[in-house]
Amino acid sequence: MIARRTAFFVSDRTGITVEALGHSLLTQFEKVAFAEITVPFIDTIEKTTQLARQINEAGERDGARPIVFSTLVRDELAAALRASTNAMVINCFETFIAPLEAELGTKSSHRVGGTHSVEDVVSYTRRIEAVNYSLMHDDGSSTRDFKDADIILVGVSRSGKTPTCLYLALQYGVRAANYPLIPEDFTRGVELPDSLKGFRNRLYGLTISPQRLHRIRTERKPDSHYASLDNCAYEIREAEILMRQAGIRFLDATAKSIEELASTILHDANLTRHVF
Amino acid sequence: MIARRTAFFVSDRTGITVEALGHSLLTQFEKVAFAEITVPFIDTIEKTTQLARQINEAGERDGARPIVFSTLVRDELAAALRASTNAMVINCFETFIAPLEAELGTKSSHRVGGTHSVEDVVSYTRRIEAVNYSLMHDDGSSTRDFKDADIILVGVSRSGKTPTCLYLALQYGVRAANYPLIPEDFTRGVELPDSLKGFRNRLYGLTISPQRLHRIRTERKPDSHYASLDNCAYEIREAEILMRQAGIRFLDATAKSIEELASTILHDANLTRHVF
Repeated sequence: MIARRTAFFVSDRTGITVEALGHSLLTQFEKVAFAEITVPFIDTIEKTTQLARQINEAGERDGARPIVFSTLVRDELAAALRASTNAMVINCFETFIAPLEAELGTKSSHRVGGTHSVEDVVSYTRRIEAVNYSLMHDDGSSTRDFKDADIILVGVSRSGKTPTCLYLALQYGVRAANYPLIPEDFTRGVELPDSLKGFRNRLYGLTISPQRLHRIRTERKPDSHYASLDNCAYEIREAEILMRQAGIRFLDATAKSIEELASTILHDANLTRHVF
Repeated sequence: MIARRTAFFVSDRTGITVEALGHSLLTQFEKVAFAEITVPFIDTIEKTTQLARQINEAGERDGARPIVFSTLVRDELAAALRASTNAMVINCFETFIAPLEAELGTKSSHRVGGTHSVEDVVSYTRRIEAVNYSLMHDDGSSTRDFKDADIILVGVSRSGKTPTCLYLALQYGVRAANYPLIPEDFTRGVELPDSLKGFRNRLYGLTISPQRLHRIRTERKPDSHYASLDNCAYEIREAEILMRQAGIRFLDATAKSIEELASTILHDANLTRHVF
């Protein structure tokens, strides 16, 4: 029998960090079915009290006390949450801040919201600018300003270039362009498309398995030549030959999430991140 | 005098979670200057040993032992890292997994990579599809399929609609369109632009301070009427009147990061997230 539990991810800011950490811990317990609830922007005693009521109700409904992951920074809110709930409360902030204070020999500021909170105009602008750059240089739509690219992703259509570029721009402030390798690029032998010449050291390739590409393309254009397994296999084979001969590093996107692709490329291509 | 320390964010996967948590803990210590290094994909003993060397070198250089935040799941890697480094090692996984096992009365699987690892095709497709939708419905470029939107952001040009839409799509799999409010929309009195009528309950507004908008627009088009403080103030005032009269909830983007805007809208508009 699968046990049921409700888990809460509580933060005084966006909750993005605590839900990622909590969720990844909970995926370790395959025998428990968790209902996961993210509760961001808990920044007053009133909101804390209301949340405590919601937590206690979930516990009564489940017949088991909820698990609460929290990054509440303000002592009075963290204490109120702990005091008024019948739950297992894991406060990631409290847990680590005292040992860090001891190690660093200095008190923490207990200021709310370092990460994911307001950025200075320079860093905000850099991020927005990177997003705009990636949008303007999506799918080879403009190849004029490739000289401003931090990285140019190449690969066949639907190999994951666009979302990876956008993630690189949003998460890291990296200017990421992309250029689709299309069948006519494979007729020139091993030569790179003209617009890519001169940028060889900024090129990074994505490849994918024919089966996966077939499924992705079929969602988009069912029963087309474009989506057929044969054509997918052909395009991928040719694209890999081209990338290999041109000395372009490439990554297999088949079993990778967008985050994995973006962070692998960031580190592998030694890109400078402009945003934390 | 500012003390110097090197901090490492170590993960067997992307490192995105551990760097966000570690970074936010470190921002609590304003009197220490941290050099922060993210080291993803540590999944073999060889990589662990090499990393340990890098950590120890940093410690010798700084004259103070580094702080290592880790989410290594595999016991032998976590143990090797701890044994071979002279560092303060905070393993978020180890710290919380034992209390969770006790609470849940079941052993954890110690499987690597729940979050940010490969997704099933359905969830991957949903995310990519949301990104494509947001791209196709960016800046009012197509208003035909607004009926498929989970949310339609409105606001003056450069108020943050595009990056927020893309973040909603990438992080949550939400189909987010956006529609710019332009000066000619303000001449119709309090009426909504035609293409927005019928979608009132899916509209969500962004506003911004005139000064901030002026700065952002000036980066783009210096010395233009478009970027002038007077024009920014005018457009914002009119947009707020329009949104208020039309009963569109709106959010002030001035002091908010993209993550804050996206997570606020997700929760405030009660959107269903399709991706974890």
